[in-house]
Amino acid sequence: MQVWKDYQEQHKDRFLNELLDLLRIPSVSARSEHKADMEHCAEAVKQRLLEAGATTVTIYPTPGHPIVYGEKIIDPAKPTVLVYGHYDVQPADPLELWHSGPFEPVIKDGKIYARGACDDKGQFYMHVKALETMVATNTLTVNMKFIIEGEEEIGSPNLATFVKEHKALLKADVILISDTAMISMDTPSIDIGVRGLSYIEVEVTGPNRDLHSGVYGGAVANPITMLAKMIASCHDENNHITIPGFYDDVVESTAAERAKMAEAPHDDAAYASDLGVQQLWGEKGYTTNERTGIRPTLELNGIWGGYTGEGAKTVLPSKAFAKISTRLVPNQSSAVITEKLIQYFQSQAPAGVVVKATEHHGGEPYMTPIDSIEYQAAAKAIATTFGKEPIPVRGGGSIPICALFEKELGIKIVFMGFGLDSDNLHSPNEKYDVFNFYKGIATIPYFHQFYADMKQ
Amino acid sequence: MQVWKDYQEQHKDRFLNELLDLLRIPSVSARSEHKADMEHCAEAVKQRLLEAGATTVTIYPTPGHPIVYGEKIIDPAKPTVLVYGHYDVQPADPLELWHSGPFEPVIKDGKIYARGACDDKGQFYMHVKALETMVATNTLTVNMKFIIEGEEEIGSPNLATFVKEHKALLKADVILISDTAMISMDTPSIDIGVRGLSYIEVEVTGPNRDLHSGVYGGAVANPITMLAKMIASCHDENNHITIPGFYDDVVESTAAERAKMAEAPHDDAAYASDLGVQQLWGEKGYTTNERTGIRPTLELNGIWGGYTGEGAKTVLPSKAFAKISTRLVPNQSSAVITEKLIQYFQSQAPAGVVVKATEHHGGEPYMTPIDSIEYQAAAKAIATTFGKEPIPVRGGGSIPICALFEKELGIKIVFMGFGLDSDNLHSPNEKYDVFNFYKGIATIPYFHQFYADMKQ
Repeated sequence: MQVWKDYQEQHKDRFLNELLDLLRIPSVSARSEHKADMEHCAEAVKQRLLEAGATTVTIYPTPGHPIVYGEKIIDPAKPTVLVYGHYDVQPADPLELWHSGPFEPVIKDGKIYARGACDDKGQFYMHVKALETMVATNTLTVNMKFIIEGEEEIGSPNLATFVKEHKALLKADVILISDTAMISMDTPSIDIGVRGLSYIEVEVTGPNRDLHSGVYGGAVANPITMLAKMIASCHDENNHITIPGFYDDVVESTAAERAKMAEAPHDDAAYASDLGVQQLWGEKGYTTNERTGIRPTLELNGIWGGYTGEGAKTVLPSKAFAKISTRLVPNQSSAVITEKLIQYFQSQAPAGVVVKATEHHGGEPYMTPIDSIEYQAAAKAIATTFGKEPIPVRGGGSIPICALFEKELGIKIVFMGFGLDSDNLHSPNEKYDVFNFYKGIATIPYFHQFYADMKQ
Repeated sequence: MQVWKDYQEQHKDRFLNELLDLLRIPSVSARSEHKADMEHCAEAVKQRLLEAGATTVTIYPTPGHPIVYGEKIIDPAKPTVLVYGHYDVQPADPLELWHSGPFEPVIKDGKIYARGACDDKGQFYMHVKALETMVATNTLTVNMKFIIEGEEEIGSPNLATFVKEHKALLKADVILISDTAMISMDTPSIDIGVRGLSYIEVEVTGPNRDLHSGVYGGAVANPITMLAKMIASCHDENNHITIPGFYDDVVESTAAERAKMAEAPHDDAAYASDLGVQQLWGEKGYTTNERTGIRPTLELNGIWGGYTGEGAKTVLPSKAFAKISTRLVPNQSSAVITEKLIQYFQSQAPAGVVVKATEHHGGEPYMTPIDSIEYQAAAKAIATTFGKEPIPVRGGGSIPICALFEKELGIKIVFMGFGLDSDNLHSPNEKYDVFNFYKGIATIPYFHQFYADMKQ
């Protein structure tokens, strides 16, 4: 609609500056020293929602970080769209690899560089600005609800309880989430699934103190070596995961589904070149898109033990640690896989060391049916602003709360992500293209319009 | 001699306080931020040598940390003993495991707790106080030279050049080193060998940046996993090292030597219990003392990569690192083994990652013949003060410079160590028993006396 275009053109600099202000708040949910920043950020989100036209906005405290809820109800008889997003971000380290401060956003070559630029401040904020656009131009045709949480990056430990206790408040017809990516701006796509997650930490203890590696070396099990042996045995020679029962509940994609997936444009050589690797890696018998989309995976997220400083220290350490996560596909259960992982590591403990495996957090896989009204409304909105039908794809990431939303609220989720895989999510130099930010703000009102029409 | 006893009894508190002062200097050679501390420590060593009776003491700068040289020449016709020690210490971390500050020495239950208490400040300082004793009581019967360096814990990178360039200065009949341990104060022993050392660092690079483990996980080789696979394959199921050619030059101990070794008192159950492990570990077919004494070993000294902070981060890291060292036995060559290690890691690089292996430092194994005058003088000195003949044992640690001393100066080394394996060398809460410190000071003058007699 021309009124949207005009309004957004007129206010675009302010939209961007408001996002930059939000990005300056180091809302790292995983680190307890950022507790005050989290509260500050929740307060900022509340203010922005109110300014955009939400009539009621409440900050709900939780045992962890607060949840921001806001709404603009125009008519209880109209359909209601619940927007979910998160104001927390991943830790920024390793800091030395950032070209500019992770919480000092800069715009370079049309890209906003900052932790959270794309994941998810830049993306959820498009919805705030879309609300403002519709309210300001008096074109809002649905009731809008917002739930912007502060614990997505640590597995949403308190959101489930909140959802269960506020079912009436959150009552809606559809949940809309922008926390995923498109293939490219030339090849728009819609994620029809996100993978589940199971995340554990493993602690291996050998001797009761760090030892001199000369005096004791050769006579005592080294916890780093033992941890390495356990990690090495997690994948077989075909890069198939060896954890007993890991694949038991996996719903295999049909040949037709795989054929459909293969139609999405993808170039392994370009993908490898972008990542700077000579050769790709993965489970035998599957393509790259299948490996990241329809197959469960196991990744080492961190490892540490012994002396890691400058120079050399001849120590045989007492302990070694690893952070390990798996991505899950329908119908795997996060709880079941976590149990199997813990069981595996504890049962594999080599003689001479003690292994303790503990759960970090998890989330279930989720799929959106492409024949649903919500998917159709999103596809039509994207086709309108991109001039091209979006391709449905299976995303590799996880949004832990999706399955719970569906179970508790009985409604479907549609993903309208405007990021790119190359946005360095969770990595140094996270970025979000200014173009994509504006494109999202332009596209989102169409979703509401089409969804309202289709629901009539 | 009664005069030694009397003098030492009279000055024992000062001896101890002087050592504590030395321990307060954080002379960590591996960390560049301690450069000024290293210079401060070298200056302190110089002053103490002068106070003890050395007539000339010079600090020789090197491209790294300075070398302190001192001497007391009584008669060029008499035998000369060169004492070697080091004033540098290992890094103190992990700091949180220390019960008191590593550079704030405390005495508790008769033990001095501090980094360097035993290795090697407490031990080389016994020689300074033995010199003082002999000079003050006018009983010195040999010429004394001291070379106290500041880079032993980082492989003595600059000492070799110094030795080669100062052969006349260092001319001596024997080198005496206190940087090893005894079985116990009830079972005195003399190390007749130290193992060699080869130390490398391995860097594994996967993608050119940290990646989101959901978006990319399963499609790209994870450098932690690949590093773990390489580490896991360094030992076979018998804990035999698999690096090609690793054992090629090992001189196997004879059955007679092994039978002799087996006579030294040792209790595997007590050893395991002291270390807090359910089960010992090591190369099949060898006893614990053989594993740490006559067999070469490979230990992981450190590993790191990815996210190692609080909580969970779903990253697929760009890099992973490990510090790996081997202990070598006669006739292995440090340079040859380092080359084989580097070759192994670089050739084992799994597809999808790049492996860079670099040398940290090394040292050759060394053996002292027990039928030599130097060994006999040391054994007689210990028998005099302990009332018991010492047992010759093969030590597991390394003193990288020994082989070079013998080669360049053409003289033998004798080890008179007064530490204990349980002194937590290189570990948190390093300690040295006050009893051992005084026992060393009491014993050392006898070595000089007996050595002078035997050389006549």
